[in-house]
Amino acid sequence: MKLPDLSPLFNARSVAFVGASNDPGKWGFLTLKHLLDGGFQGRVYPVNPRESEILGLKVYRDIATLPETPDLAVIIVPPPVVLGTIKDCVSKGIKAGIIITAGFAELGREGSKLQQEIVETARQGGMVFVGPNCNGIMSPWNKQHIQFPAFFVPPGPIAVIAQSGNVVDALSLQTKMHGFGCSRCIASGNEALLHCEDYLDYLGNDPGTRVILCYIEGFKDGERFMKVAREVSRKKPIIMLKAGKTQAGARAAVSHTAAVAGEDAVFEAVCKQTGVIRVKSLDEMLDTGLAFLRQPLPQGRGLGIVTAGGGWGVLAADACAELGFDVVQLPEDIIRELDKILPAWWNRGNPVDLVAGTAVDNTYKAVELVMQCPSVDAMMFLSLMPALRMGSFDAPHDEQAREAWGKKMTEVVVQAVDEFNALADKYNKPIVLASEYMCATHREQAEITFALGGHNAVCYRMPGQAARALDALVKYSEYLRKSP
Amino acid sequence: MKLPDLSPLFNARSVAFVGASNDPGKWGFLTLKHLLDGGFQGRVYPVNPRESEILGLKVYRDIATLPETPDLAVIIVPPPVVLGTIKDCVSKGIKAGIIITAGFAELGREGSKLQQEIVETARQGGMVFVGPNCNGIMSPWNKQHIQFPAFFVPPGPIAVIAQSGNVVDALSLQTKMHGFGCSRCIASGNEALLHCEDYLDYLGNDPGTRVILCYIEGFKDGERFMKVAREVSRKKPIIMLKAGKTQAGARAAVSHTAAVAGEDAVFEAVCKQTGVIRVKSLDEMLDTGLAFLRQPLPQGRGLGIVTAGGGWGVLAADACAELGFDVVQLPEDIIRELDKILPAWWNRGNPVDLVAGTAVDNTYKAVELVMQCPSVDAMMFLSLMPALRMGSFDAPHDEQAREAWGKKMTEVVVQAVDEFNALADKYNKPIVLASEYMCATHREQAEITFALGGHNAVCYRMPGQAARALDALVKYSEYLRKSP
Repeated sequence: MKLPDLSPLFNARSVAFVGASNDPGKWGFLTLKHLLDGGFQGRVYPVNPRESEILGLKVYRDIATLPETPDLAVIIVPPPVVLGTIKDCVSKGIKAGIIITAGFAELGREGSKLQQEIVETARQGGMVFVGPNCNGIMSPWNKQHIQFPAFFVPPGPIAVIAQSGNVVDALSLQTKMHGFGCSRCIASGNEALLHCEDYLDYLGNDPGTRVILCYIEGFKDGERFMKVAREVSRKKPIIMLKAGKTQAGARAAVSHTAAVAGEDAVFEAVCKQTGVIRVKSLDEMLDTGLAFLRQPLPQGRGLGIVTAGGGWGVLAADACAELGFDVVQLPEDIIRELDKILPAWWNRGNPVDLVAGTAVDNTYKAVELVMQCPSVDAMMFLSLMPALRMGSFDAPHDEQAREAWGKKMTEVVVQAVDEFNALADKYNKPIVLASEYMCATHREQAEITFALGGHNAVCYRMPGQAARALDALVKYSEYLRKSP
Repeated sequence: MKLPDLSPLFNARSVAFVGASNDPGKWGFLTLKHLLDGGFQGRVYPVNPRESEILGLKVYRDIATLPETPDLAVIIVPPPVVLGTIKDCVSKGIKAGIIITAGFAELGREGSKLQQEIVETARQGGMVFVGPNCNGIMSPWNKQHIQFPAFFVPPGPIAVIAQSGNVVDALSLQTKMHGFGCSRCIASGNEALLHCEDYLDYLGNDPGTRVILCYIEGFKDGERFMKVAREVSRKKPIIMLKAGKTQAGARAAVSHTAAVAGEDAVFEAVCKQTGVIRVKSLDEMLDTGLAFLRQPLPQGRGLGIVTAGGGWGVLAADACAELGFDVVQLPEDIIRELDKILPAWWNRGNPVDLVAGTAVDNTYKAVELVMQCPSVDAMMFLSLMPALRMGSFDAPHDEQAREAWGKKMTEVVVQAVDEFNALADKYNKPIVLASEYMCATHREQAEITFALGGHNAVCYRMPGQAARALDALVKYSEYLRKSP
């Protein structure tokens, strides 16, 4: 099957908005308003037979009377009217649509029949569409925010495909909180015509997309998915979460997007064969995706850990060993070098437990020494405090001084993470970081996390998260090496 | 064995600080400074033979010359001097100490021998001590912060016991970020004399402590631990993380606190028999602890889910079913009642998928209807948006208006969480919440999380976290019911 051209979905120069409304409580109002508020640069044509002006725009009574053939039609009309609207789009020569309207296959047999008619009509007319029963598409690089919620995710390297608009919103909002942002976000809904694999294929060739997060409730065309996933995962990592693992989940999936969840073991096998990185929960999804944005891929499972906290070292060693890492024995010559810069009572093992009061420069030297071990393929550094060029950690108590101090803290954390990443580049081995931001308030903590994203960097909150992220890097690297 | 009196450790009226220093880079300076900065109200006696004044306090040249017998001695002197210091403490009649100094059993045989001598000396002298090789103790309710890091956790309901100072710091800092705080934090180090179970016993009777988080690398007296844990877990929940599950982790634990990790299966059995709630990672620990602060305990595993996002509903159903919850079928009469307040095309299943545009009052009504089902023991509500009495979700773009808007958003989120919790009280069934804070910036998100803690409330970020928290509530409730 020849792949349909999806670019009008993401780079529309003109958009018809069928079912635009003046009622501020309706999606036909909010979604249009957000498209305009988001700074869309193209032409917008609201369509509604009973209005003359909406949000300052001239309204057209039907698709036929539009002054041009728009690249894209957004459709928010009642379910029984959707089929006719698609026919009108086809007549006008419109090639792409987003059907936001719900009430089709997810409601049962009648809805399925209607949905199938819509698909056939579109297909015969050479039109593709997203949905139905979806939330829209965001394409931040060109300010095309066709979306329900009123926040605007900044442009960034992460793409999101999800059969749930809610999942899209949660993930894209998290990319924003972490100072990154999204390239394309697709709420794919029932996937009646366009499927997950169509979007994957498009994103594989999308230069703005570096990592793809994908939430799926059920596959429509497993064979094609495998072919596409195999191709795309050679170019960029695909992180995937599949719902409907349990009976309760599968039942919920049917009533949500009419998705048939299928056997979990089959999905597991599909992931192994295609290089797709599977995650087990939404919590892990972003953590895993962020790991791929900055770090070189490790060449094996030999792991070095340097920690400023003994307990964190033990927890990280446990978490990594459980995931199949080899927490390597350090060679004698490296231990001798470490002896020169660490106090006499350091633990002489891996994890290297930095002794309190280690000078900042020695912290980086210790990390570099461990990275130089040939058996070390990847590094973990835990608890940033001894890596911060901060002078004093005594936070002042009066508010103004505190604010300046918070800014300084943000600066030195970003600087430290940059220093570690420079070592990662120098040795071409990943360094994954986890740390609390000691002495920071809740506001300062949020600022630091956000600022790190501006440097394309991430520091996990807890060692377990860092371990899972590192595991994803290794799995992807192993897949690429064994499937050239 | 009669339990030693630990109150001088947590409620000292006077503290000797042996090894106090004027060098701002040393722990003997920093720890003392933080005690003073933290607002300690008792008398403080720095001890150092070579100084006359430290941080404005008169310095004593030895313990013998102190003007009174202090309740507590903090000991930060080099390892070879510790034994003599304990002897001096005993001579002076001091009953409690905190040995911060490292370099004992964790270094091997010589260190173990010295450590054992110290223990015997103290024991014969009727003295107890924390450590050695530890970070100190924080007792925020009475502003007794004997600690290394320069942040002050506010007083609150959560106690932390951990063999790692770093773990104590990370957890207590997180309680602060979440707007809660800690009752007592104990970095227990090598646990040479006082063990985890001694602190547990004390906290069991501590009225300021409602939940205990405990990180352990290895048990010293398993039998006594079981006895104490059984008693305490009847009074308040104990959440526990044990390190050293893998060889790499166990090796790291030995070099950290000389702890012998033991068999993981044994620990699992211990937890089952004592009602201790086991968590698998530091990430889960706080989430689990927070669940116990506000919610009533569920009487079974029947679960109702109401969600404003279909995908979140599917994920929650999966996560909960995997943990052994029964996502119940709703009875016909409740479905008929829901029909009256939800649009015709709602999914008529559990999870109840609120259809976009549901009025706020109907959101709460829907939750209440599901709670009324006799088969529902516990509730989960996902995605707060339709529960917020916000008017409009369109955030203004200019900075001042945005700030006011952010405050309003914080207010309505707190209000919504309060409304849900009132329902929990009314029906005596827990409601666990998970939601993104739609439209919020990273700063606003931090503020909301913090403000919720001020109302003794929590809203998890992702459905998986909420599912684990709910599972902990059920497990604890099951334990209490079967062991009267």
